[in-house]
Amino acid sequence: MQQCMSPERFARIQQVLSQRQHDLTLLMEEVHKPHNVSAIIRTADAVGIHQVHAVWAGNPELRKGTALGSQIWVRNKHHDTTADAVSHLKSQGMQVLVTHLDNTAVDFRQVDYTKPTAIIMGQEKDGATEEAVELADQSIVVPMIGMVQSLNVSVAAATVLYEAQRQRSDAGMYGKGKIPEIEKQEILFEGGF
Amino acid sequence: MQQCMSPERFARIQQVLSQRQHDLTLLMEEVHKPHNVSAIIRTADAVGIHQVHAVWAGNPELRKGTALGSQIWVRNKHHDTTADAVSHLKSQGMQVLVTHLDNTAVDFRQVDYTKPTAIIMGQEKDGATEEAVELADQSIVVPMIGMVQSLNVSVAAATVLYEAQRQRSDAGMYGKGKIPEIEKQEILFEGGF
Ligand SMILES: C[S@@+](CC[C@H](N)C(=O)[O-])C[C@H]1O[C@@H](n2cnc3c(N)ncnc32)[C@H](O)[C@@H]1O
Ligand SMILES: C[S@@+](CC[C@H](N)C(=O)[O-])C[C@H]1O[C@@H](n2cnc3c(N)ncnc32)[C@H](O)[C@@H]1O
Repeated sequence: MQQCMSPERFARIQQVLSQRQHDLTLLMEEVHKPHNVSAIIRTADAVGIHQVHAVWAGNPELRKGTALGSQIWVRNKHHDTTADAVSHLKSQGMQVLVTHLDNTAVDFRQVDYTKPTAIIMGQEKDGATEEAVELADQSIVVPMIGMVQSLNVSVAAATVLYEAQRQRSDAGMYGKGKIPEIEKQEILFEGGF
Repeated sequence: MQQCMSPERFARIQQVLSQRQHDLTLLMEEVHKPHNVSAIIRTADAVGIHQVHAVWAGNPELRKGTALGSQIWVRNKHHDTTADAVSHLKSQGMQVLVTHLDNTAVDFRQVDYTKPTAIIMGQEKDGATEEAVELADQSIVVPMIGMVQSLNVSVAAATVLYEAQRQRSDAGMYGKGKIPEIEKQEILFEGGF
């Protein structure tokens, strides 16, 4: 395989993979607009997320992955229902946070993101479902002091993820190279250079 | 005028206006996609920016403001050229930062945003112009440790703006009510309830 790409590119890919955070992820709950999904996945890649999760019951196109184009470097796992997704995440020992303004929500900066963490992002128009809010361990909110009622979903995701990146970077959690060798080989293969 | 709206809404508007940061702004340099412009302006509103700036030489529609819809709560000032815009911002005593990856760029978290600050965001495809990079006081970059080369422009803007919001909030810079009375009246009038 190493013959198919330059040594520089191979080294870069190895380095990226070794920084991946296997215990930090997002769950997109019916986030539908391709430009939002794409912006979210670019951000996930940039903070070292290995895999995101999605519930796209209402959107078979996104489920097929066609809208995501070149975002192959972040894996995407589809779940049929929010309940399935949340139980999958909890079974991995993750705290499940939902970005949602309700009277139990805490400021997103108060959360410890060095713990295994999944963050639920809600649909553009209606936000996260009641079910997601009930199943999550905690609601979090990005403070807003203007007239508009909400942020764009990819903006909210990025704001939370870069706080997680800051905390994890301070805690020395990047560059620990925990990615299993088999996974590296798979990704190198799927990258298909 | 107070007869046209509920006392609650009037109080909310007064409160929002009193938190506005008159010495923190963005300059969008040929940012063209309406969904990006709209996401940026929503974020600007959310962190208390009073006015944004734009150079939209290549986009008369955006210049007319039609694409911005309900974003009337953040003012927008159009400039014909980047040079005009930057000299306007510098004449107001602002440090001018450009979000751009070059070998002089510093991590965005190293900057002191409690100073009067303007942040240049570049065009979706090609990024900030050489002119912008030369005229700016400092290039800043949001760190990325993945395979993609850049973040979505509204995501990058939000990441920097929420760092500014954090620093200014810690420094007690919100809620100082510096907005001139005449400006309040104007905005209340333009809000048109
Ligand atoms: C446009 S918002 C949905 C607005 C919807 N009307 C509501 O009340 O939830 C879409 C998604 O962006 C995220 N979001 C937007 N603004 C946020 C904020 N200030 N804090 C946390 N999440 C936010 C949430 O995931 C939300 O479900
Ligand atoms: C999609 S990027 C432009 C990419 C372009 N190929 C380049 O090299 O500049 C559009 C804008 O988003 C902002 N941006 C994207 N990623 C960034 C990052 N990691 N740090 C700072 N700004 C970023 C900058 O304002 C940039 O001009």
